[in-house]
Amino acid sequence: MEPGSRGAAPGGVSVSAVLPAGGSGERLGGATPKQFCAVQGRPLVSYAVRAMERISWISDIIVVVSPENIETMKTIIEKYGHKRVTVVEGGITRHRSIFNGLKVFAENEFSSSLLQKPEVVIIHDAVRPFVEEDIISKVVMAAKEHGAAGAIRPLVSTVIASAADGCLDHSLERARYRASEMPQAFLFDIIYEAYQQCTDYDLDYGTECLHLALKYCKTNAKLVEGTADLWKVTYKRDLYAAESIIKDNLSQQVCVITNVKETLAQVGFLLLESLKSQIKVEAISVSLSKNNSCLQNVVSGQCYNFVCVNDKSCALQETQELVDMLERSNIPLLYPVVLISVHLDISNNSFSIGMEDLNMIKKFARETKKKNILVYGLLIQYKGCQVVSMPCLKWLTQGQSHISM
Amino acid sequence: MEPGSRGAAPGGVSVSAVLPAGGSGERLGGATPKQFCAVQGRPLVSYAVRAMERISWISDIIVVVSPENIETMKTIIEKYGHKRVTVVEGGITRHRSIFNGLKVFAENEFSSSLLQKPEVVIIHDAVRPFVEEDIISKVVMAAKEHGAAGAIRPLVSTVIASAADGCLDHSLERARYRASEMPQAFLFDIIYEAYQQCTDYDLDYGTECLHLALKYCKTNAKLVEGTADLWKVTYKRDLYAAESIIKDNLSQQVCVITNVKETLAQVGFLLLESLKSQIKVEAISVSLSKNNSCLQNVVSGQCYNFVCVNDKSCALQETQELVDMLERSNIPLLYPVVLISVHLDISNNSFSIGMEDLNMIKKFARETKKKNILVYGLLIQYKGCQVVSMPCLKWLTQGQSHISM
Repeated sequence: MEPGSRGAAPGGVSVSAVLPAGGSGERLGGATPKQFCAVQGRPLVSYAVRAMERISWISDIIVVVSPENIETMKTIIEKYGHKRVTVVEGGITRHRSIFNGLKVFAENEFSSSLLQKPEVVIIHDAVRPFVEEDIISKVVMAAKEHGAAGAIRPLVSTVIASAADGCLDHSLERARYRASEMPQAFLFDIIYEAYQQCTDYDLDYGTECLHLALKYCKTNAKLVEGTADLWKVTYKRDLYAAESIIKDNLSQQVCVITNVKETLAQVGFLLLESLKSQIKVEAISVSLSKNNSCLQNVVSGQCYNFVCVNDKSCALQETQELVDMLERSNIPLLYPVVLISVHLDISNNSFSIGMEDLNMIKKFARETKKKNILVYGLLIQYKGCQVVSMPCLKWLTQGQSHISM
Repeated sequence: MEPGSRGAAPGGVSVSAVLPAGGSGERLGGATPKQFCAVQGRPLVSYAVRAMERISWISDIIVVVSPENIETMKTIIEKYGHKRVTVVEGGITRHRSIFNGLKVFAENEFSSSLLQKPEVVIIHDAVRPFVEEDIISKVVMAAKEHGAAGAIRPLVSTVIASAADGCLDHSLERARYRASEMPQAFLFDIIYEAYQQCTDYDLDYGTECLHLALKYCKTNAKLVEGTADLWKVTYKRDLYAAESIIKDNLSQQVCVITNVKETLAQVGFLLLESLKSQIKVEAISVSLSKNNSCLQNVVSGQCYNFVCVNDKSCALQETQELVDMLERSNIPLLYPVVLISVHLDISNNSFSIGMEDLNMIKKFARETKKKNILVYGLLIQYKGCQVVSMPCLKWLTQGQSHISM
């Protein structure tokens, strides 16, 4: 499949997604609702949107936010260049918000332009940033077959019921129960029918879409085992956890790119040798200024980390070429790309960098960050025999968030 | 109460604690069981032990570990200077491990020395590092009155039951149920009786102590609302979350200590002025080499962070004095003490520090870390007018884990 082209959904159905993002985040204990809190400098909701956006067979992505956050959400969409997203005003509860999101596909008066009704609609939380295509496909397939489907996880704690006096009434046998997570998917007609029929009590106090499908449409949802990454950002500590997951993903593999110049290739080789016991490494030696199919294959593959070794004199220019190439690949990525630009100083002059260079790189890094490409600079004075890899190695494997130059 | 003295337990009962730490940590996805994973350089189990140890009215702390980890646990106890701890060999399941822990108080043949049976026994997980005295007191009081008590938290996800075909059978109304967390407490005779009566099926497949007390002793446990910090470290992301909680606690307040010398006091004042909009700050100007009651009041209070501004020439010596004073205060701390030792260079010589000094400070920091005191060094060249606070401020408020000197 060409990157960015619209592929076929599992089972050939048409699919859209609704992301309720109207929560107030009171459990987080901060002023900012959690979906707008930044993780590695990007709002959580942007990760969730990107997770949907990168799946080419999802037609429309409806983000439902509370009235006071509509402008914030529109700014985020513009800033991070999200596509296929419609922002809808939410209701005062989760169910009312989801219902509003669904109405965009069914009721003319609700939206300026009625969107094409999908056969299957995915419902996913804005505060579950790391949902993979695999689990989304599975719930979509299961929803097509069963009418409704949802991801589940084992319970972490025992669940208990309390009596009126605040004492234990009974505890549930943990193995018999599961935590209901997201994503969920439904035949659109089933979930829309359920929302139309349900009571104000359901809309105000309920939280579970699978329950509505069962109660009002007699549809027993298929339950699909999800992965640990599906958890919901609920407390402040979860924001740190989200950051840790990004870091874990950053450190899986790396591609070392060097210019064809002999000295640079030599450094690239040393780097490869010392990194390869820690991390999966590919190394290629190319001229970045030319279109190179070998590099493009790497870029369109699963590698999201790059160490680019350049001569100091043309480092920024070559880094720019690589960023352009990554952008042209047009793959909206779930996890950020890390690009460590190693500027090799092979002269014998003193180890220094001017303020002008520094500001230029900082400005460049700020711009690329909006595109989910994290650029770090590293200046190394190279005398021809020292292995330069130790600091890089540490930064890569730890996914350090800041490297100053 | 004198620091380190044995205070009275709530309700005047005798209290001991059992910490099951036998889990294999398979959900964490690593080779090391989670209770032995390091958070800020210290194994998780050491935090949980310290959380019990700092409460003077808990007599004995029983840590139950699997046979292959007994030596590891003993090493941890020695390394971090834990007191009142007995290590016991666990069984193959959680319930069997807890039962083994309880036997130390009741069965002569199980332990070389029978420990005094407490009226109330606390059961807490080794992987819940941040339990405060307040919630422990509450469950102990409630256990004294009701026979059993346990901390609970609201459910984060809806709980559902699946049918045999993998489809939704029913979902539970979230508001009616709670997650059962730790700590729990029991009248010793009740929980020991329950364990003696329970079946092999209970011991092998059950997980909930409150359930055993109800089933075998007809004791309906009192449920006590806990705080968000009580959650259990289950997945790898939780280790990062634990680290974040430590950092949040590090940054609540700071005491700026300067020597009485005029220049140093001046720097201390500048630091205070620029820190106070970000964090609660106290500032005192004392001679560290003399016993000073003003400083001791701070140390025995709730302040866990210190910035100590010294003349470079005697900085290490004065830092040592402060560490000694913290140690003498003999308060086992739940969260680490951070001590930033600012070495002020008021000469006009070049900005430098010798390798020997550096190694001395590093070695010193390694030693104090074992005592839960994190020492960071900072060398500042001071010309008499510049505010030195910016880097300190950033490190303090972010709880940066490493500051190189």
